[in-house]
Amino acid sequence: MIELVLIGIGTGHPDHLTLQGVRALQEADLVLIPMKGEDKEDLAGLRQQMLARHGARAVLAPFDLPRREADDPDYLGAVERWHDAISRAWADQIAQHLPGGGRVALLVWGDPMLYDSSLRIAARLPVRVRVIPGITAIQALCAAHAIPLNSLASPVTITTGRQLRDHGWPEGARRVVVMLDGACAFRTLPASNLLIWWGAFLGMPQQILDHGPLEEAGPRIVAARAEARAAHGWIMDCYLLARPD
Amino acid sequence: MIELVLIGIGTGHPDHLTLQGVRALQEADLVLIPMKGEDKEDLAGLRQQMLARHGARAVLAPFDLPRREADDPDYLGAVERWHDAISRAWADQIAQHLPGGGRVALLVWGDPMLYDSSLRIAARLPVRVRVIPGITAIQALCAAHAIPLNSLASPVTITTGRQLRDHGWPEGARRVVVMLDGACAFRTLPASNLLIWWGAFLGMPQQILDHGPLEEAGPRIVAARAEARAAHGWIMDCYLLARPD
Repeated sequence: MIELVLIGIGTGHPDHLTLQGVRALQEADLVLIPMKGEDKEDLAGLRQQMLARHGARAVLAPFDLPRREADDPDYLGAVERWHDAISRAWADQIAQHLPGGGRVALLVWGDPMLYDSSLRIAARLPVRVRVIPGITAIQALCAAHAIPLNSLASPVTITTGRQLRDHGWPEGARRVVVMLDGACAFRTLPASNLLIWWGAFLGMPQQILDHGPLEEAGPRIVAARAEARAAHGWIMDCYLLARPD
Repeated sequence: MIELVLIGIGTGHPDHLTLQGVRALQEADLVLIPMKGEDKEDLAGLRQQMLARHGARAVLAPFDLPRREADDPDYLGAVERWHDAISRAWADQIAQHLPGGGRVALLVWGDPMLYDSSLRIAARLPVRVRVIPGITAIQALCAAHAIPLNSLASPVTITTGRQLRDHGWPEGARRVVVMLDGACAFRTLPASNLLIWWGAFLGMPQQILDHGPLEEAGPRIVAARAEARAAHGWIMDCYLLARPD
């Protein structure tokens, strides 16, 4: 019997971890550590520091994260095949280290519920899944700017850079959070009086913030993002767009 | 100089608190404890237990939370006046206990960014505001059901029961989270093949979950909600609605 615990660890600040997350780390027998190549070594290192800090006794199982075929024109099919490959990599590590069963943990950036594939990958395996929620980038963004996500009693749309680029401003929305945007999709919106609150490396020492009217802040963000990405070799960011109340 | 720290404490599980939240509790000089009458005494009690557990040295300042005029036809105006009254109650406590300045904490259910008024109330006062994010009911709901919030790379709308009742299904949405719904607004939707995942008292010992096709699960949820509300004197719940992929 394998229990797989997906632990949301927040967005880079080691103190984003919840007390529930600390306990789950301490109770794990095995921790899967996906290795994504040099660019994201920072992230594997952060996971290992977190385990050491909280006295985790688990065996660490680093494994090479399979790569997704980025050029495959069949986007959804390529994602399915990628998730299949990741589930096989997890299963290999689990079979090797826990032949008699036990508790396996995976430290998930943010929260496993939000734009993360771990739950879908786990569904391919004969394991019992438990989820520990963690602070998402949306929360770290709002906390860093000390702003509410929603305007009073109003809805909010959470979407992706790809969706914003392909489908434009979500119909009827007043506030939109954009995630997974590698290409500053806000540039594809028509001129407007939108406001933006942006953050990169949220919660981490290298955190960068900007905000203002999109027409003024947008070009600053494009430049700051490119510079930070070049400096660190990778970047994670997200932003909130709002029509003025 | 007053620093007001809004600490998201999660939705009722004491281990939802983050390590950042623990530290902020420990560093506070004064903690504002809103008292809402007998119905929600559980919640004030939970805050006090949390402070004791983490060795907070703060002075506790319980105060009667002003009431909102629920029958006022001018909804937004009534909310503005209510927030004014709360800000005066905070200011009174701060002036009384910290005449020379210091760190004031407010323990906010969930996360201060999401359907919470603390940031808007704090903006009325001459204080420096810091936000510590906390686990929201949306995250506790998804964790309890072990489900992702979004379908693959797709948007999600977060809205309120009032919005759903008054404006129907958000245009173009496939997944909708509904919060602050005291009246099971899902009953106002036309018959459909929607799915629902519902949770009440998320993270607490009395947590209740249900899920399934809305037409089957909806009536069960209406009954369970009424029964639980009668038993406990109060209820907090939320739900995710999805069109099948």
